[in-house]
Amino acid sequence: MKHVPTVETQSLSPVAADRLRELVALVLERNPFHRARLEGVDPDGELRLTDLPPLGKRELVADQARHAPFGTNLSYPLERYTQLWQTSGTTGPPLRVLDTAEDWAWWRGLFAHTLRVAGIRPEDRVALAFSFGPHVQFWAAQQGLQELEAMAVPLGGMPSVQRLQTIAEVEATAVWCTPTYALRLLEVAVEQRLEGALESVQRVICTGEPGASLPAVRSRIEDGFAAQCIDHAGLTEAGPFGYPCPAGHGLHVLEEEFACEIVDDELRPTALGQGGELLITPLRRTGSPVLRFRTGDVVVNTDARCPAGHEDRWLPGGIVGRTDDMVVIRGMNVYPSAVEEAVRRVSGSGEFRITFYSEPTGLDEIKLEVELEEGDGARRLQDIMRQQLGLRVRIVPVTPGILPRPDGKSRRVVDDRPVRAGAP
Amino acid sequence: MKHVPTVETQSLSPVAADRLRELVALVLERNPFHRARLEGVDPDGELRLTDLPPLGKRELVADQARHAPFGTNLSYPLERYTQLWQTSGTTGPPLRVLDTAEDWAWWRGLFAHTLRVAGIRPEDRVALAFSFGPHVQFWAAQQGLQELEAMAVPLGGMPSVQRLQTIAEVEATAVWCTPTYALRLLEVAVEQRLEGALESVQRVICTGEPGASLPAVRSRIEDGFAAQCIDHAGLTEAGPFGYPCPAGHGLHVLEEEFACEIVDDELRPTALGQGGELLITPLRRTGSPVLRFRTGDVVVNTDARCPAGHEDRWLPGGIVGRTDDMVVIRGMNVYPSAVEEAVRRVSGSGEFRITFYSEPTGLDEIKLEVELEEGDGARRLQDIMRQQLGLRVRIVPVTPGILPRPDGKSRRVVDDRPVRAGAP
Repeated sequence: MKHVPTVETQSLSPVAADRLRELVALVLERNPFHRARLEGVDPDGELRLTDLPPLGKRELVADQARHAPFGTNLSYPLERYTQLWQTSGTTGPPLRVLDTAEDWAWWRGLFAHTLRVAGIRPEDRVALAFSFGPHVQFWAAQQGLQELEAMAVPLGGMPSVQRLQTIAEVEATAVWCTPTYALRLLEVAVEQRLEGALESVQRVICTGEPGASLPAVRSRIEDGFAAQCIDHAGLTEAGPFGYPCPAGHGLHVLEEEFACEIVDDELRPTALGQGGELLITPLRRTGSPVLRFRTGDVVVNTDARCPAGHEDRWLPGGIVGRTDDMVVIRGMNVYPSAVEEAVRRVSGSGEFRITFYSEPTGLDEIKLEVELEEGDGARRLQDIMRQQLGLRVRIVPVTPGILPRPDGKSRRVVDDRPVRAGAP
Repeated sequence: MKHVPTVETQSLSPVAADRLRELVALVLERNPFHRARLEGVDPDGELRLTDLPPLGKRELVADQARHAPFGTNLSYPLERYTQLWQTSGTTGPPLRVLDTAEDWAWWRGLFAHTLRVAGIRPEDRVALAFSFGPHVQFWAAQQGLQELEAMAVPLGGMPSVQRLQTIAEVEATAVWCTPTYALRLLEVAVEQRLEGALESVQRVICTGEPGASLPAVRSRIEDGFAAQCIDHAGLTEAGPFGYPCPAGHGLHVLEEEFACEIVDDELRPTALGQGGELLITPLRRTGSPVLRFRTGDVVVNTDARCPAGHEDRWLPGGIVGRTDDMVVIRGMNVYPSAVEEAVRRVSGSGEFRITFYSEPTGLDEIKLEVELEEGDGARRLQDIMRQQLGLRVRIVPVTPGILPRPDGKSRRVVDDRPVRAGAP
């Protein structure tokens, strides 16, 4: 059973290539979902990553709908599984994902690694400013801290004011939350004259949204907390694939744990310097594995090393957008994250809401409701949009406090355009 | 350093006596809080449990107020602690309690033991019908399951209907919640015509309140779910000291882990057959230890073995009340749990609220607002109260749905009596 590495597996390290072969052999032997998809793949023959079909979330959802409640992407009998997660359903029906005790230990270890790289030490006290429901990332946060033996301070169920008070009282050195909620917490601190409550905080660890990779969001958080903003990335289906480069402003991927490709709309490798969708193959999560999973995360392809000189594969700027957030307006690809980035660059801007709508003439337009301070904020924002994004946007300044305040993931996009024939 | 066991340590097993001596030596060496309290105790001399002063929650709270935020009950430097808990503050100001990684592993192991005794197996799917905040018991539940490798299904943040749907969809074999919420979930199932949702449930594990030890509450839960109701007991300060006897309807204490005494108001040993307050000394939780902790839980003292023949010390009927819930009305000790027990014995009874108040004449009275079905429920309830509790109670039947529905611990007692001079 000797394998001749081909062009494709040469892009994997020998360890990664071995792990990929083991994974493919395992799923062909035991996993009904992948066995059906990988027909014709010979695990003992030459194995190229690109011989495997990319996997979209929809296929997993459809499989689960046909074979409720857990689908057929199971490599082991059900009693081996110890954790049940559910995706948030932001971009479609929620998907259930199971982990075995081994897979969950793998998550924990990777989260502990992420934390260590980000500078968290056992002496840190990390306030967890979120609730714990069926979504994996919050549990992985808590368990990663446990693995690292830093102190976890759960703030679930508390209103924001009480969270701020607790942060102050226990002198938390770090806060973990969504980037949206980090900004909300700052807003409450100012409203309630509790700015001093965040004095002990040295790091804000962001989760659940790509926001903390956006430079303007990041600096808004860093300025507000007078602390370092730490991003990382992961998906329920694919695991915690991106850990932060604290020095280089971007993410890294551990390539012995994740095979990583960046592709264009037609799933061809993206040219260097270009953005494309990240495909992830977690090599050692075997209970409900995914092969070449279409993350929907848009990243920039580079062969450069990060400015800090770290070895692992670098994603400069981290997650720069989501393919499923992208809206085509008058032929332009519009990412809501780019709009958010522009908003945050205008000082004094607050909550906002993006609405895509159609004029009676049939032309698609963008309306941006946004809380702005007195002055020329609206004009500045319009200029940034036009110059940097090439977008003409109708800016509607709104009174502060009117737009809803999300407590977790943001819900800031409204798509009011009529459904078109042939739309997905 | 040979120890002559005295009368008192003879009531401890040799293992427990050794562990007690180790604990006392440790706290005398390293723990400022206990060092101050145990002045005069010689760890190398004879050591009788009753030589140590009992410890009330108030002393811990006062110490924490003086030495914010964590107090002085710390045997190790702060960076050794990994978990921060906060009591619910039902009976006073909240107390913060820290655990080290070792102490937390001890909790997990004891919860896994509780689950195993209760019949939970790795193939079980346990729906966690609560939120995760700063209270320890819910985290211990989740981590005990993890230790056992049963499947944890977190339902935090979901409304009751969605919880029922998820229980049905994943075919949960057990539900874990407060007894109050178990009854609430049944109520929602009936209201929403979702009774079938609970079909797969074989066990209801109750936590956070003594309710599931009350026979009528227990049988209400068992009938409603057509499942076994499992109780257990623990306190943030003292650890998970009581595991259920599934056959004997009561709790057991692992005496190698917990030294256990039952005492009267004046802290003298309670006679056999009598109820008294449980004092607990967890022998191997060393980070923030308590010695002879006054749990406030009322249990019955017996030297009988449980009907199922289990070896460990038996608390028949489990927790039968709380000293701090007790109200003295016209010279009678009234436990709200006894009132609840009476309410649940009347078929068709729903939510209720107990109000203690003073008549203009100065006499204290009890009002019981309760949801009852048509018929003679009110009269029956009055009879039960008078005959079994010796209480004269004003029963006020109320329209179903008006009284608040607690989602976690119950809050069913209102004390409207004027504060008396000399009251605690």
